[in-house]
Amino acid sequence: MLENFEAALRRSNDLIQSGLEDRLYSNYSAELTTAMRYAVAGGKGLRGFLVLASANIHGIPEARASRPAEAIECLHAYSLVHDDLPCMDDDDERRGQPTVHVKWDEATAVLAGDALLTEAFRLVAETPGEPRAILRLTHSLAMAAGAHGMVGGQAMDIAAETAEVPLSLDEITKLQAGKTGALITWSAMAGPRMAGADTAAMKTYGDALGLAFQIADDILDVEGDAATVGKATQKDADAGKATFVSLLGLDAAKVRAAELVDEACAALDPYGADVDVLRAAARFVVTRNK
Amino acid sequence: MLENFEAALRRSNDLIQSGLEDRLYSNYSAELTTAMRYAVAGGKGLRGFLVLASANIHGIPEARASRPAEAIECLHAYSLVHDDLPCMDDDDERRGQPTVHVKWDEATAVLAGDALLTEAFRLVAETPGEPRAILRLTHSLAMAAGAHGMVGGQAMDIAAETAEVPLSLDEITKLQAGKTGALITWSAMAGPRMAGADTAAMKTYGDALGLAFQIADDILDVEGDAATVGKATQKDADAGKATFVSLLGLDAAKVRAAELVDEACAALDPYGADVDVLRAAARFVVTRNK
Repeated sequence: MLENFEAALRRSNDLIQSGLEDRLYSNYSAELTTAMRYAVAGGKGLRGFLVLASANIHGIPEARASRPAEAIECLHAYSLVHDDLPCMDDDDERRGQPTVHVKWDEATAVLAGDALLTEAFRLVAETPGEPRAILRLTHSLAMAAGAHGMVGGQAMDIAAETAEVPLSLDEITKLQAGKTGALITWSAMAGPRMAGADTAAMKTYGDALGLAFQIADDILDVEGDAATVGKATQKDADAGKATFVSLLGLDAAKVRAAELVDEACAALDPYGADVDVLRAAARFVVTRNK
Repeated sequence: MLENFEAALRRSNDLIQSGLEDRLYSNYSAELTTAMRYAVAGGKGLRGFLVLASANIHGIPEARASRPAEAIECLHAYSLVHDDLPCMDDDDERRGQPTVHVKWDEATAVLAGDALLTEAFRLVAETPGEPRAILRLTHSLAMAAGAHGMVGGQAMDIAAETAEVPLSLDEITKLQAGKTGALITWSAMAGPRMAGADTAAMKTYGDALGLAFQIADDILDVEGDAATVGKATQKDADAGKATFVSLLGLDAAKVRAAELVDEACAALDPYGADVDVLRAAARFVVTRNK
């Protein structure tokens, strides 16, 4: 099952990367084009996969879902480029390659991130479909990515680094729902949003998957091998940051992640057996080793 | 006439700032809210004014045009916050106040900029109106702001700083059409876009206005008083950067700016006398002292 999923993930990522090769460029600066493409390459493409799969089970063909899938990968890539900056997490390596500000410079990293964020909105607004549905898809992406979602969670994370009291479990759950969860949930909900269908089941699935993903990330930070993970590990532990592992303990964190995978799978019950690939995706996020 | 225009500009800016007080915040981080609002405050609000005025002459009431007016001011503010970063222009002062990375820190400046950019797309997607028109308005904002517009022009500008050969007049005109012109033209075109009307006249007006604005900026950099302008002057001249003034000479630059104002006003002929406030706006950009 996981093998099938991993093949499906690779196939979807190839499709997304090939679309971005066509559509991601600047007519002003060849260097900006190169830096943007460098930043989107090399990831697993999980968020884009979720968009394509959730569209598929709602009867939206790949040709219509490819724009929002490309958009979410641009948006995710921008967040990594800016997070890696010296004034943020100061990471030199990402996906086993030098980060954008190491390969070029900080100015290029700021601009490539800004451009990827902006092009994400261009791409999602180009999605073929009923204008009201596409407008909602676009608006919800801004809600997920901005001050009420990813950037908000990231700001809360930065503030926590200098706070005297470490975050509680409730606080870290809220933080991660913004920082990591919002884009994953948006991806899962993209299908029903495009189709004008009920989004509740896919929201429950996405929320559980996003939280499981982050708990697995915290476990990887402790247990993972830097060479396999493709970035520095033990960073959070060394920094004394509150994480799901530091708050729950390693064993309880693993149990919680497994429960969340079950919750995510249970949310898919209304869809029957057709969505086994999404169940496999949920299992994948907690078993991946990078 | 200019007095009337300046009063109209102040009134429109008050309206936009008051809307942003209501709508610009983060439910994750009070500091992010404060930094975002700090960054949007204190400007003249020219772009937002252009949105409201161009909407008005196309029969779109203020209540419907306020969201895109707020959006363009967020977007403009983000561009200033990121441009001022140490790795970019390294400016300590903006609009007579410390820049965001000076008042807070670089991480806050990166995040506040990212949030303002993202919230701009949220706000524009919330514009009341016919969904297809609003979707076009949203898509065109991404085109104007991203790799094919503002960020593209900015990347070209950064590359020019280390290039051996200074930019030609054609190159600097292209650069500025992206870096400064694209948002101004988008603002001027917002009205006909929302109304589903012909955009050609407002495009001509916006393109001429945007170029006049940048030439006036280059003149201010040479002739302006830092205390009045509210930021460092003589920076471009000291850096030996190609500008309209260095390429044309001061007198010819003033003549060219005046010609562009005439072009902008002529483009408004089809609208008759109703649009005198937009003619005044064109004169304003070349006579302002900050």
